[in-house]
Amino acid sequence: MAVNLQKPVAESLHAVPGVELRIAMAGVKKPGRKDVLVMRLAEGASVAGVFTKNRFCAAPVIVCRKHLKARGAIRALVVNTGNANAGTGADGMKRAMAVCRALAKEIGCKPEQILPFSTGVIMEPLPSDRIIAGFSQLKDAGWGDAAEAIMTTDTLPKAFSTTVKLAKGEARVTGIAKGAGMIHPNMATMLGFVATDAAVPQKILFSMVKRAADRSFNAITVDGDTSTNDSFIVIATGKGPAATSPKDLAALERAIIEVSQNLAQAIIRDGEGATKFVTVRVEKGRSEAECRKVAYAIAHSPLVKTAFFASDPNLGRILAAVGYAGVDLDTEKIDLHIDDVLVAKRGGRNPAYREEDAIAAMKKPEFTVRVVLNRGKAAATVWTCDFSFDYVKINAEYRT
Amino acid sequence: MAVNLQKPVAESLHAVPGVELRIAMAGVKKPGRKDVLVMRLAEGASVAGVFTKNRFCAAPVIVCRKHLKARGAIRALVVNTGNANAGTGADGMKRAMAVCRALAKEIGCKPEQILPFSTGVIMEPLPSDRIIAGFSQLKDAGWGDAAEAIMTTDTLPKAFSTTVKLAKGEARVTGIAKGAGMIHPNMATMLGFVATDAAVPQKILFSMVKRAADRSFNAITVDGDTSTNDSFIVIATGKGPAATSPKDLAALERAIIEVSQNLAQAIIRDGEGATKFVTVRVEKGRSEAECRKVAYAIAHSPLVKTAFFASDPNLGRILAAVGYAGVDLDTEKIDLHIDDVLVAKRGGRNPAYREEDAIAAMKKPEFTVRVVLNRGKAAATVWTCDFSFDYVKINAEYRT
Repeated sequence: MAVNLQKPVAESLHAVPGVELRIAMAGVKKPGRKDVLVMRLAEGASVAGVFTKNRFCAAPVIVCRKHLKARGAIRALVVNTGNANAGTGADGMKRAMAVCRALAKEIGCKPEQILPFSTGVIMEPLPSDRIIAGFSQLKDAGWGDAAEAIMTTDTLPKAFSTTVKLAKGEARVTGIAKGAGMIHPNMATMLGFVATDAAVPQKILFSMVKRAADRSFNAITVDGDTSTNDSFIVIATGKGPAATSPKDLAALERAIIEVSQNLAQAIIRDGEGATKFVTVRVEKGRSEAECRKVAYAIAHSPLVKTAFFASDPNLGRILAAVGYAGVDLDTEKIDLHIDDVLVAKRGGRNPAYREEDAIAAMKKPEFTVRVVLNRGKAAATVWTCDFSFDYVKINAEYRT
Repeated sequence: MAVNLQKPVAESLHAVPGVELRIAMAGVKKPGRKDVLVMRLAEGASVAGVFTKNRFCAAPVIVCRKHLKARGAIRALVVNTGNANAGTGADGMKRAMAVCRALAKEIGCKPEQILPFSTGVIMEPLPSDRIIAGFSQLKDAGWGDAAEAIMTTDTLPKAFSTTVKLAKGEARVTGIAKGAGMIHPNMATMLGFVATDAAVPQKILFSMVKRAADRSFNAITVDGDTSTNDSFIVIATGKGPAATSPKDLAALERAIIEVSQNLAQAIIRDGEGATKFVTVRVEKGRSEAECRKVAYAIAHSPLVKTAFFASDPNLGRILAAVGYAGVDLDTEKIDLHIDDVLVAKRGGRNPAYREEDAIAAMKKPEFTVRVVLNRGKAAATVWTCDFSFDYVKINAEYRT
C-alpha cells in the first residue's frame, strides 16, 4: 500500500564507523519478531536530539531529555517496539530506568549514558523484564535490520544513506525512522535516528538537529496527532573526518537534511492507509509561520484528505481549509494550483480551468498542491497523505 | 445510520406566528427534490445572526452580514441547497444579489430586506436563474418540510420545538438545522434557524444569538472543518408575547438554547458516517477556553475517533490528544473517565481499571468522555461523533 516506497537495499546503506547495531527478538508484544535495537556508540561520539512537545510525553522521552541534558557521553541507544511506555506514570519511569541500568551493566557504562526509546501501544506497562532478558540474545545487525526492529504499523522499513565530501575526507550519513500513525511531529517524528561518522562538536550538532527536524520530520503529517514518543536523534561518532570549517559544516548539514527528509517522506509514503503522497507548498506569504499554518490546515483537513483519496478535485475544500487556517488572509489574492493546473485565481475559479486536468493530476500517486498567497516572500512545504478506508480500518483494528 | 435520531414528528413542531414557510423544487443540483426554502417574516420581526469565521466565507454570508448590519427590517430569508455559492468570487456576489432582488420583487420589499443562504457543493456557479424560476412555484410548508428542504448529506431532517412561559403569555420557539459534514462551526453551524413569536428588541436578540451559538452550534465537531457558509439565525417575530423583564429574557434565552442544543446535537447524531454520539466534557480547568481547547483536541483526533468507532478503549490516544492540546497542563493531575469508569488517575492508569468496563461503556451508541484537569473551576462540553468507514466513503464519493 505504501506510495512509491521500496524496502531499502541493504548494500545502499553505508555502515557508520563508531556505531554498532545489534537486535533481538525479546517478545515485547508478541514472540518471534525483531523488537529490540541497541546502538552502541564509540567513545567520544556527539549525540543531539529533539523530542515531542506533547505534555503527556512518554517515560523514555523524559529519561532521554535528562540524560542528554547531563551532557555525559552517550554510549548506547536502546529502542523497543511493541510498547510505548507512555501514560504509565511513575511506574513507567522506573521501568525505563531499569532498562537503562541493565544495558549499562551489560556494556560497562553508567545508566545516564544510555538513551531509551519506546514505541507501540500507549498506557500499558512496559515489559521491561522481557526487554532486559533480550539483551543476552543480541545479534549483530545492519541498518536494514535495525530499521525493521523499530517498526510498528509500518508496512516497510525506512532507511536512507548518503555520503558527503568534507575537507578531510568523505563522511557517511545513514538514518532509519519509523511511522506510521499518530504522525504530526512537533519537534521530531515518532522515531528517527541519523548517524554520521564525521566529528562534530556536540553544541553544533544540537543546532543542526533542530534545523534538520524543521525541514523534515516537523514538516509531515498523517493525521495531525502528535505522538507522546516522538524522538529524533543525530549521532556524530567522530570516527571519520572532522567537520570544522563553516563550509564542511554546511555540507554535512545538507547531507543530514537530505537523509532526514527522505526518512520523513518515507513515513508519509507509508502513512496508515496512504494511497497518495501529497506535497503541500504555500508560497509568497508574509512569514514562514503563516505559510506553515495554511499548509497544515490543508494537510489536516479530513475533507481534503478524503478528496485526495478519491482523486476528486473538490477544490473548494482546499480553499475552505485555507480560509480557516487562522491567518488573517486577503482571500482575493490567493491562487491555487494542482501540479501545473491553475485552479483558482485571485480567490475564485480560474475561468480557463478544466476539471479533467485537475482529475488527471490527482489520479497520480504523487502530486503537489500549491497555494500562492501573493502577499510576501516566505514559503513552507509540508508532506502528507490521503485519508482512505484503510486508515480507518487500521486504526479501528489496531488492538483488536 | 444516525445515532438515536428520528425524523421529527410534524405535530410536535409549533408553528411560529409571524413566520410563513414556503418551499419549491427548483432543480438546483438535480430535479425532483425540495431545494429552496423561503421564510417570510411579519413586519417588525427582529433578526440576529452569527456567521462563519472562515476567511473564504461564501457570497451569501457576505450579503447576510451587510443586510443585517444595515439593520433594515428583514422581511424574508431564502435558502437553497445543492450549491454553496462559495469560492465563487465577484460572480457569486452578483448571483446572490440577483436572488435577493427577485425575491424582493416577488414579495414587495427592498433587496436589502432579504437574507440569502446557500449550502452544497463549493466553487461551482450558483444556478440563480433556476432558483429565481422556482419562486413562482413556492408552496406553503410546515417546519418539517422546511427542515427537509435545507438538507445536503443529512440522512434525516433536523427540527426541534418548545414553548416557554413569559409574563404576558406562552411563546413558541421552533428551529431547523442541517449538517452533516464540514462541521466545526466557528460562530455558527452550517445552517441553523430558530424562530420565536416572542417580541425581543433586535439589540438584545444579537447578544442572545451569540450566547446560544456558543452553547450549541459552536460546541460541536464532526471533522474539524469550518465551513464557508456557517450561519445561525434567530428570529423574534413579535406576534406573540413580549419578553422585556430580565426574568422573561432569561427564560426565553434558555428556550432558544434548548432548541439550539437539540439541533446542534442532531447534526452530530447525523454526522457523516456517525455510529456513536460522544459528549466530551472537560472539567476543573483554569478557564473555559482551556477546557474547550482540550475538548476539541480530543474531538478532532482521527485516532481517538477511529477508536470510538471500534469501541476500543485505546485510552492512551485520548491522553495523547490532551497532551498536545496546546495547554500548559500538569499531566500528573489529570483524571480520565469513560462514563463512570475511572480509567486514568493522576496522569497514569488507574490500578483498579478493568478494560472490559470501558469497552462496555464504549459499545453503547452514546457515552461521555470526561477529563478532569484538577486545577480550576471552569468546564466546557463539546459534542462529537466517531470516524467510520462511511465517513471516508461519503466524502470520497460526494461528487462522483
